[in-house]
Amino acid sequence: MKNVPAPAVVLLSGGLDSATCVAIAQQSGFSVYAISFRYGQRHSIELTRAAAVAKHFSIQKHAIIDIDLAKLGGSALTDMAIDVPKHDTAEEIGTDIPLTYVPARNTVFLSYALAWAEVLDSNDIFIGVNALDYSGYPDCRPEYIQAYEMVANLATKRGVSGEKLTIHAPLIHMTKGEIIRKGIDLGVDYSLTVSCYDPTPEGKPCRRCDSCLLRARGFAQAGISDPALQETQ
Amino acid sequence: MKNVPAPAVVLLSGGLDSATCVAIAQQSGFSVYAISFRYGQRHSIELTRAAAVAKHFSIQKHAIIDIDLAKLGGSALTDMAIDVPKHDTAEEIGTDIPLTYVPARNTVFLSYALAWAEVLDSNDIFIGVNALDYSGYPDCRPEYIQAYEMVANLATKRGVSGEKLTIHAPLIHMTKGEIIRKGIDLGVDYSLTVSCYDPTPEGKPCRRCDSCLLRARGFAQAGISDPALQETQ
Repeated sequence: MKNVPAPAVVLLSGGLDSATCVAIAQQSGFSVYAISFRYGQRHSIELTRAAAVAKHFSIQKHAIIDIDLAKLGGSALTDMAIDVPKHDTAEEIGTDIPLTYVPARNTVFLSYALAWAEVLDSNDIFIGVNALDYSGYPDCRPEYIQAYEMVANLATKRGVSGEKLTIHAPLIHMTKGEIIRKGIDLGVDYSLTVSCYDPTPEGKPCRRCDSCLLRARGFAQAGISDPALQETQ
Repeated sequence: MKNVPAPAVVLLSGGLDSATCVAIAQQSGFSVYAISFRYGQRHSIELTRAAAVAKHFSIQKHAIIDIDLAKLGGSALTDMAIDVPKHDTAEEIGTDIPLTYVPARNTVFLSYALAWAEVLDSNDIFIGVNALDYSGYPDCRPEYIQAYEMVANLATKRGVSGEKLTIHAPLIHMTKGEIIRKGIDLGVDYSLTVSCYDPTPEGKPCRRCDSCLLRARGFAQAGISDPALQETQ
């Protein structure tokens, strides 16, 4: 009898963490259904990169969902009237919740992933949140992921019928350096990924936003030079 | 000093329950921000009715959000290839989860409401779910609402900063008859609402889907004739 791989829904942003997540889900034996969102981002480059990552791993399906978060406003990432904060080093990044926080973003994203998981008869959702080298977003913490898993099981037909839905957050306790080393081992091509909150229209990173600085520190920790920087210099 | 009412986000579908919820939120002293969704429903009449209810109560703001649930498929309410189940009486409705169940619908809706609540600095979200005269959807149960409230408080800046977000489900333990009597007391004009899963393009209810039959039984319980039926006959 042929062993058919179980489907898993993986949140894919086009960034470093979610690309690593796709690789981990695939290595764990899942058939990957990646989901990305067009949510009024300042830049569409991340969706192009998400598609490139999906292609690189020959995943089962990649869905791009249009969502209306920008209509509700309130974040530097979706509201063009707010400037993305810039710093010179990762050490300057504050511990307060930053302006780039998008209200309820991971909750909205996970809800779509949950809807798709139910349609696919899948028990597994992967999200690349990280509680160490992150930007202070509340919806990246382990207790948030645990609570969401409880909602997922109470919300759905699968949960009611005795199946167990799992929200996998395999990167949650890893440093950025560990994530990068893991990804390299699994064949992630980080030149395809983009992390910058405020890139040029061509996708060139600003190198001074929180996300660029955390990425640079991660590659330094891993002792690897960032292939994305080499390509855009 | 003038007393400024606190904002509350209310999920508004254009049906009987959510219209009653708007009235309850307003009577509780909240300034109502209603949110409705265009999610690939078979009919757009419910959004027209939602707007009419919003106008009737002169609420603060009514946002209609486009969402992509239909793209993910899997429900008789969004997939035209699946027929809406019909019965002759409410007693014939099974206790299984029906085909009209939309995967993770309330989870997706609440996630948008949560995003808006955070932007509005609101601690209060109202949802008109009902655990008695309902159609067996898992995301209408009290334990689901409680779990979602936990997620809401862990997911957001407000929750982290010590504010307490509440998911109000004031109808959850009421019969349909009790909801209708409550709504009549609070001035709800039920002729503006539509409950049918499969109305004609003019909004005339089919009278045989689960939702029509539960509504009819509710008006019978309340000892009131349904003003929406009078208008569409």
